[in-house]
Amino acid sequence: MTGTLYGLGVGPGDPELITVKALRLLEAATVVAYPAPEAGESLARSIVADYIPGDAEEIAIRMPLHSDRFPLDEIYDTAAEDIAGHLRAGRDVAVLCEGDPFFYGSFMYLFGRMAEDFRVEVVPGVSSPMACAAVLGAPLAAKNDVLTVIPAPLPSDDIRRRLEASDASAIIKVGRHFPRIRDLLDDMQVSDRARYVEHATMASQRILPLSAVDSDSTPYFSMILLHARGEAWRQ
Amino acid sequence: MTGTLYGLGVGPGDPELITVKALRLLEAATVVAYPAPEAGESLARSIVADYIPGDAEEIAIRMPLHSDRFPLDEIYDTAAEDIAGHLRAGRDVAVLCEGDPFFYGSFMYLFGRMAEDFRVEVVPGVSSPMACAAVLGAPLAAKNDVLTVIPAPLPSDDIRRRLEASDASAIIKVGRHFPRIRDLLDDMQVSDRARYVEHATMASQRILPLSAVDSDSTPYFSMILLHARGEAWRQ
Repeated sequence: MTGTLYGLGVGPGDPELITVKALRLLEAATVVAYPAPEAGESLARSIVADYIPGDAEEIAIRMPLHSDRFPLDEIYDTAAEDIAGHLRAGRDVAVLCEGDPFFYGSFMYLFGRMAEDFRVEVVPGVSSPMACAAVLGAPLAAKNDVLTVIPAPLPSDDIRRRLEASDASAIIKVGRHFPRIRDLLDDMQVSDRARYVEHATMASQRILPLSAVDSDSTPYFSMILLHARGEAWRQ
Repeated sequence: MTGTLYGLGVGPGDPELITVKALRLLEAATVVAYPAPEAGESLARSIVADYIPGDAEEIAIRMPLHSDRFPLDEIYDTAAEDIAGHLRAGRDVAVLCEGDPFFYGSFMYLFGRMAEDFRVEVVPGVSSPMACAAVLGAPLAAKNDVLTVIPAPLPSDDIRRRLEASDASAIIKVGRHFPRIRDLLDDMQVSDRARYVEHATMASQRILPLSAVDSDSTPYFSMILLHARGEAWRQ
């Protein structure tokens, strides 16, 4: 009997923001895989470290993070082969995914390689824009707002056009693009309405005015939320 | 000691998709409030019915649902006053929110009325676009995709422009707008790439080709996902 591949959304950072379903599957897992940097700790693993069974076999999928280069095919090929071995031997494999597996998640690279040959179940998770809105105390989108999720690596002109066309915007993957994005928002005269959060719901969470962000150390998991009318719920 | 108002995301429908945190707060709640139709059962309540303490006081905030009219001020004024009475008496109040409280949620109308006077904590939840992507087995957005969330009540020309400008789109609140949206997608020749889901992760979940949807009975909680390049993760 072949095992099942589970893509488990572990949520944005607070270990309590995992779903009951993902927790149940994780606690029963015999093999747990997760993305990890070339050296050091996996963020996804660190979020749920207390839930991983002590006797589970762990597979760290190590790769250059915070890179604009898109995933290295060989690394995913190798990980998929490794995971497939466990599935063929009848063992379920739980893959840990920061936030939600299918919201800009690297899980899709395993999914694309394995979904035709194996049973795959994706357990959705709480995503970072919703986590940021919660900790900011500011609704993300209301009524018939158009909400646009904009990756910061896009060209500034493109980002500007998207912001101008949207009621509500979440600029994601800010990281080292922060100085350019701040300049753009200043130029658009919307900086006073923009809200910056890094590591939402984690112990290291910080909420800052744009002007107070140290642009030399902006983490990859940082986000800027913006509403065209300032406060979504007051119209 | 004044109580705390909790906005609890209960997730998209499967009771196991509530977070551990929202479940903990709900199981400890002495007062539980939720949106409900004028007559009949509250969807948010039905999702977590098994978790509500038997001795909790319940406040159903009843109003016309599936209406394009935006919320009736008097109803929220009354509910806020009612909830404020409990908070002033030192009782915490948990408000149940389908999906996530700040993602197009009606919780923001209570939040706007109460956040200045009371301690409010928002617990984010799994949102419907992520739930739909999970059950469809199709990533929502990848890499540097721009993802646009588009409410179906918007004019067709506006929706068309948004779809044309986006890599990935989630058309929400489809309901009675379905025939118009289907015509638009047919006209844009993208219907074969569009994926329709209603009641994602609930027992009543249905996934259908657009051509098979009975447009007389499309529920409010239905969604169409579309990716400009067909499959987000294959490029």
